[in-house]
Amino acid sequence: MPNDSPAASYSVDEINRVKRRHDRGFYDQATVHALLDSAALCHVSYVIDGQPYCTPTLYWREGTRLYWHGSSASRMLRNLSTGEPACLTVTHLDSLVLARCGFNHSADYRSVMAFGKARLVSDQEEKERALVMMVDRLFPGRTGQLRPTAKQEIKASAVISMEIERASAKVRAKGVADDEEDYELPIYAERLPVYTVLGAPEPCPRLLAGVERPANLAGYREGRKLDDALREAYDMAYLEPAE
Amino acid sequence: MPNDSPAASYSVDEINRVKRRHDRGFYDQATVHALLDSAALCHVSYVIDGQPYCTPTLYWREGTRLYWHGSSASRMLRNLSTGEPACLTVTHLDSLVLARCGFNHSADYRSVMAFGKARLVSDQEEKERALVMMVDRLFPGRTGQLRPTAKQEIKASAVISMEIERASAKVRAKGVADDEEDYELPIYAERLPVYTVLGAPEPCPRLLAGVERPANLAGYREGRKLDDALREAYDMAYLEPAE
Repeated sequence: MPNDSPAASYSVDEINRVKRRHDRGFYDQATVHALLDSAALCHVSYVIDGQPYCTPTLYWREGTRLYWHGSSASRMLRNLSTGEPACLTVTHLDSLVLARCGFNHSADYRSVMAFGKARLVSDQEEKERALVMMVDRLFPGRTGQLRPTAKQEIKASAVISMEIERASAKVRAKGVADDEEDYELPIYAERLPVYTVLGAPEPCPRLLAGVERPANLAGYREGRKLDDALREAYDMAYLEPAE
Repeated sequence: MPNDSPAASYSVDEINRVKRRHDRGFYDQATVHALLDSAALCHVSYVIDGQPYCTPTLYWREGTRLYWHGSSASRMLRNLSTGEPACLTVTHLDSLVLARCGFNHSADYRSVMAFGKARLVSDQEEKERALVMMVDRLFPGRTGQLRPTAKQEIKASAVISMEIERASAKVRAKGVADDEEDYELPIYAERLPVYTVLGAPEPCPRLLAGVERPANLAGYREGRKLDDALREAYDMAYLEPAE
């Protein structure tokens, strides 16, 4: 969101403190939000009758609030509608790291864990706005180019929101990091980068003649990193009024 | 694992039945295991004092058992060591889908949710074998090329195992799927593929002169899909005795 305060930070307590490798932990909103805005897929954890569930879903952020989507039939939504504790996690895998001993094998990654109470969005206006932003957050201005959403589609959709009460980011970005004495060993070590990228867009085979790819999708081009495209789209969707 | 029975299937009940879009659900071990073996990163959900946590970590499979790793200092391991209910989820994002209405915007994906009781591996032999396979599952034969693991490194490591009691796979792989009447609208729609690929290996800048990249890493080459490389490595690690 444009109105983040650069100095703002999430408070830290026993729930969100990064304990293992605490040097990798960040709590400032700038770091946490940048990671959230660079992804589309998250995993949400919630509890039913003592059993934890970990569900992948699409999500997005507005200020310090997260939104995600599901059918009203899903077990997650039935459970979370009354305001249940949840944890939404986003992870970017950036590399596999091959060190000179097994213990120092690792991975570079950027992740965020966000904690709060998940609630079903029941306010009609907030829900309709959320259903627009679910699409326009990815593809700014797209909703205005689409067949309008039908009333029964709005009814069949469910949107969950969660005000972030606590959050932490954890980042490892150092590649090979061996024990000092191990660098003298004749053992091969490397950082193996991992990228999530866009392929060539595949237009629907049933497009009507003359229908071209709209200019607002130009940021989604073959070979581009997904996180860069998502971050750019997010900034466009929230900084510039979408058509 | 080589000894999967092709006909074997995980049993289905209220916990793992795919309720939303049940046509996308699979329970056979062949489908579930193939998806698990094609990834390195999972998200594990567990509960402490009613608060769910969703933690990203590296994992692998042996038969119907999953393993993952963490320091004995981590909050996850302290909690799970006595056998706590957990859910381990793996998701491959394959595309973003732009349809002719907001409601049909979607994504192609392949995911697995596995449920069971997570336990700290306390048997010393099982733990040492797991620490080998944590590396060799990714890079078959690599442990034999490394500086041996020190006793204090084994002690400082913790390995978690979870026998899979229930599991389900969920797959969407159909790209644009609009309502029949919407195909007559002059609206652009596409499937936007997403690939997770390997970059060019980055050798450690402190390699000793003459140390070459070993042949057993040849499958990890620039531009290859990560899931293909991981699946191939997995099959090599478990089908062929690693050196």
